[in-house]
Amino acid sequence: MKEIRQLGRHSYVFSPYLEPIASVQPGEEFVIYTKDAFEDQMVSEQQKPTEVLGEYLNPQTGPVYVEGAEPGDTLKVNIIDIQPTRDWAVSLFIPFFGGLTSTHATRTLQEPLPERVFIYKIEDGWVTHNNRLRFPWRPFLGTIGTAPFLEALSALTPFDHGGNMDVPDVKPGNSVYLPVNVEGALLFTGDCHAGQGQGELCGVALEVAARSTLSVELIKGKKVRWPRIESVEEYMVVGSARPMEDAARIAYTELVEWMTELGWDKWEAYQALTQIGDCYVGNMVDTYYSMVAKIRKEYVHP
Amino acid sequence: MKEIRQLGRHSYVFSPYLEPIASVQPGEEFVIYTKDAFEDQMVSEQQKPTEVLGEYLNPQTGPVYVEGAEPGDTLKVNIIDIQPTRDWAVSLFIPFFGGLTSTHATRTLQEPLPERVFIYKIEDGWVTHNNRLRFPWRPFLGTIGTAPFLEALSALTPFDHGGNMDVPDVKPGNSVYLPVNVEGALLFTGDCHAGQGQGELCGVALEVAARSTLSVELIKGKKVRWPRIESVEEYMVVGSARPMEDAARIAYTELVEWMTELGWDKWEAYQALTQIGDCYVGNMVDTYYSMVAKIRKEYVHP
Amino acid sequence: MKEIRQLGRHSYVFSPYLEPIASVQPGEEFVIYTKDAFEDQMVSEQQKPTEVLGEYLNPQTGPVYVEGAEPGDTLKVNIIDIQPTRDWAVSLFIPFFGGLTSTHATRTLQEPLPERVFIYKIEDGWVTHNNRLRFPWRPFLGTIGTAPFLEALSALTPFDHGGNMDVPDVKPGNSVYLPVNVEGALLFTGDCHAGQGQGELCGVALEVAARSTLSVELIKGKKVRWPRIESVEEYMVVGSARPMEDAARIAYTELVEWMTELGWDKWEAYQALTQIGDCYVGNMVDTYYSMVAKIRKEYVHP
Amino acid sequence: MKEIRQLGRHSYVFSPYLEPIASVQPGEEFVIYTKDAFEDQMVSEQQKPTEVLGEYLNPQTGPVYVEGAEPGDTLKVNIIDIQPTRDWAVSLFIPFFGGLTSTHATRTLQEPLPERVFIYKIEDGWVTHNNRLRFPWRPFLGTIGTAPFLEALSALTPFDHGGNMDVPDVKPGNSVYLPVNVEGALLFTGDCHAGQGQGELCGVALEVAARSTLSVELIKGKKVRWPRIESVEEYMVVGSARPMEDAARIAYTELVEWMTELGWDKWEAYQALTQIGDCYVGNMVDTYYSMVAKIRKEYVHP
Repeated sequence: MKEIRQLGRHSYVFSPYLEPIASVQPGEEFVIYTKDAFEDQMVSEQQKPTEVLGEYLNPQTGPVYVEGAEPGDTLKVNIIDIQPTRDWAVSLFIPFFGGLTSTHATRTLQEPLPERVFIYKIEDGWVTHNNRLRFPWRPFLGTIGTAPFLEALSALTPFDHGGNMDVPDVKPGNSVYLPVNVEGALLFTGDCHAGQGQGELCGVALEVAARSTLSVELIKGKKVRWPRIESVEEYMVVGSARPMEDAARIAYTELVEWMTELGWDKWEAYQALTQIGDCYVGNMVDTYYSMVAKIRKEYVHP
Repeated sequence: MKEIRQLGRHSYVFSPYLEPIASVQPGEEFVIYTKDAFEDQMVSEQQKPTEVLGEYLNPQTGPVYVEGAEPGDTLKVNIIDIQPTRDWAVSLFIPFFGGLTSTHATRTLQEPLPERVFIYKIEDGWVTHNNRLRFPWRPFLGTIGTAPFLEALSALTPFDHGGNMDVPDVKPGNSVYLPVNVEGALLFTGDCHAGQGQGELCGVALEVAARSTLSVELIKGKKVRWPRIESVEEYMVVGSARPMEDAARIAYTELVEWMTELGWDKWEAYQALTQIGDCYVGNMVDTYYSMVAKIRKEYVHP
Repeated sequence: MKEIRQLGRHSYVFSPYLEPIASVQPGEEFVIYTKDAFEDQMVSEQQKPTEVLGEYLNPQTGPVYVEGAEPGDTLKVNIIDIQPTRDWAVSLFIPFFGGLTSTHATRTLQEPLPERVFIYKIEDGWVTHNNRLRFPWRPFLGTIGTAPFLEALSALTPFDHGGNMDVPDVKPGNSVYLPVNVEGALLFTGDCHAGQGQGELCGVALEVAARSTLSVELIKGKKVRWPRIESVEEYMVVGSARPMEDAARIAYTELVEWMTELGWDKWEAYQALTQIGDCYVGNMVDTYYSMVAKIRKEYVHP
Repeated sequence: MKEIRQLGRHSYVFSPYLEPIASVQPGEEFVIYTKDAFEDQMVSEQQKPTEVLGEYLNPQTGPVYVEGAEPGDTLKVNIIDIQPTRDWAVSLFIPFFGGLTSTHATRTLQEPLPERVFIYKIEDGWVTHNNRLRFPWRPFLGTIGTAPFLEALSALTPFDHGGNMDVPDVKPGNSVYLPVNVEGALLFTGDCHAGQGQGELCGVALEVAARSTLSVELIKGKKVRWPRIESVEEYMVVGSARPMEDAARIAYTELVEWMTELGWDKWEAYQALTQIGDCYVGNMVDTYYSMVAKIRKEYVHP
């Protein structure tokens, strides 16, 4: 099986201007290695994030060129497996970053929260810092997306191309649908999380380096406008925007659209999602907030 | 068992200025009857909401005086049972109301969506409009709260006193903690839903008249700042605000606070909720949006 | 000339449930006395706001009953004159209140900003704390409004009834149009500011007790939906909402509406406001933010 | 005087990855020609925007390399003169774009507003469509900025690098301070407006092709975080974000910062801006809203 590792410097932008580091065929399974969001530099609780971290954050492995992908297609990425490549994960408190602090986007004159490093041990299906901070291994890819059409967007940003969505449903067993904006789609991924709550509250999940097994498929001639996720039981759409209600509006509007593509009347879809849809926070910390709207398939195909 | 029905006119505001219609003792089980959000006036798909509905919306049964409740206490309401008092529910599309339309708060120059009435049959544990719009009976109280201190707030508004939160976890088996702002607490409830998705997308759930069995308890000398919900498995807080991120910030901040009351260090609580907390949309349609932050008890008491 | 002073306790809510303290005739000039937003309790820079201030804030003088006012009318309030009744003003830094701090609505885990009292001398048309903090006397009424229909809203809240808008254009020479929701209109006012920037950044302007000369007129059978202001040169609308863009949308939509009432085509009004409208922040600190949209009359009546 | 015209294709992104089309020296006056936001393609009221406009919008002239500019510097751009290069301007109604409609960011299920073209004649200092839509010639540069560090941002986006701020104070006689993120600063500008109200309400100002005379200066070793504007009488900061209150928070926080650089105590600056600062909407239509906070120099240097 093809193994993709970053050649030279990682990608810190989802960019149509970068040279592919590898190419894959639709249908082909491949393995992709990713560093953690801090380039594997935060290794000890004695470190200070503000002294270690610089401007290069959230390194992505990519771009990966998908043979045959053309603008106007949709790229389906199947997430087959995620394994950690080390036995520990890390979370941080970073000054002026997170959901319960003022930030560079939501400015105040207040002092920052204290910075701090939490190292977790990964063992026997659990991720453990101490006997209180101990959570199950629930891995997913925090960041995944394709190149935008003209822009080169920071790997810290989620938007309609995917990117730093931090949505726990981007996990093994599920598929992600992404728009193809440029030839070859140019897939990037990184930022594997050993687990994360809804919202990624302090801004840093259980960050881990990983080895993920993926495959891609192409849906020709039809481009999703926003990322979609399919699990065995659910249809989901991810909207990323600020304020948070705009992200929720995008997610639910696109889910109405998906249901109409599946044969539903638009107004009945709006009614059905009112009564049986779900909507949770992916992240409330990134440059755009991500909201996930979803519906169980049994209600879509009754 | 005491049965509480509205005497005379219903309450359309959560108000400290209204005379109690009944009183209950802490520990006492009682039954309370509620009309649906439209005063049981929308009964046919041939009706037009704009012709039937006026300024009196979301009628509440109350205020109910709780013996011994004093400002500074917390009122715990146990939701024991909810039964429909009729065999049908109703949902509406109301012009300029809902999550995927401009509204009186989010104004545009666009035309409204079409108005429409959906009548559902309640039978055998299902709520059915047709073979596509068919959902399980999952009842809860859309509106529940205590009187504010000085204000009289519309029954359409959710805020720190509870009110029109439209949170599906206000359901049988769970308990809601509300602040006591005035003598006797002055409990109001109404707006029973036969089911609702997260967000209450079109603004109108499966509205039903109901007979609910409740009991109340008092926690003396300690007042919750925002409504809390406890289920067998989870601790939850409801924050209501605009924009939606402010509601999420309130919910998660108060959940940090709850965990510290349960013995947690504040910073470890912030870290734990980052990794294992959940956060969903209660409503994205009311005067304030409601967000629910929650954590499973097994992670709070490991 | 009739002089209106509060009898007994002040009003802390804009409420339809309070007894009028006075009545006035349309066309009649009258004088109204108002305390400052802190009930004249903050008098020294040695005081700590958190030790002095309680739950009763922003006292209003009112309600004043307007003879002949009926629901569905509009109340025009002419602001003829404002005089301070003392020779000093006060501003405060209050913990978790203001535009550049987290607040009770925008919660974080951070520490508050320091609290502080600034006493200003009013003299010779200037309001002076020291040689840097020295501003011209530019008085206006921070809070003015009518009673809502069913709700009793905190005097700290601006909304469609007016209330705590903190808009500097509510000043001598200008007129404010308010909706009449209940018989007698029930006018309240207070919170005089000796001056204030756009946004009322720290949350507390140059607060002063005052003696204002007003008169009222009635526009029968036509109710403004949101407060309007007219000066010699401009038409203005105040929208109050969160997020701030919703306040701006309300203000500009209602200004389009006003122009159509004055004979404009809706689409030309939208175009004209695009090219020549102005829009500033009234407050970015209250329970709802207030935005003022305006246009010079020379462009409305070319 | 050096004349800068775009060579070949225009720039549609503020990108560090593009080759400079010209270079200038600090202190040198130069002339720069810019097309209108629609590449001069909208020329008749019979055209339909949706049939003419494609994905290439808001063409910028640039990048212009500034000799000696290094990351960490600030670029001061003096706007000396703006002249139209044609005798007409154009405004449009574009479906799902503007301040009083749902948009691609604020999604609803509603139909769009009608599309429409307004052609204006520029003559004798006035910009005239008909006898109602007639406004003074008040030209400014809608879009101006430097290249971001890693990202290539759409020319439709305003952010900390400047970009599509749509702020009327970017006008002749004023200077704009921009961060230098990459060697040579890489200045782009375009989107000249013959006039615009605060907010750019329908999303399209009085768009015109222009010939602007500029000069640049370098402030070595000190980088502004957000764009600043200086006029003869005022200091201003532009913050761009969503929701709008976040843009206002940025603008005012950076203005506090500017005042501290000018010798003020931080808390006195916060107090002064409360009492005498101004804050208006630049745009309420772009990918980020732009807010301008300002203070008159007489209050900064009393």
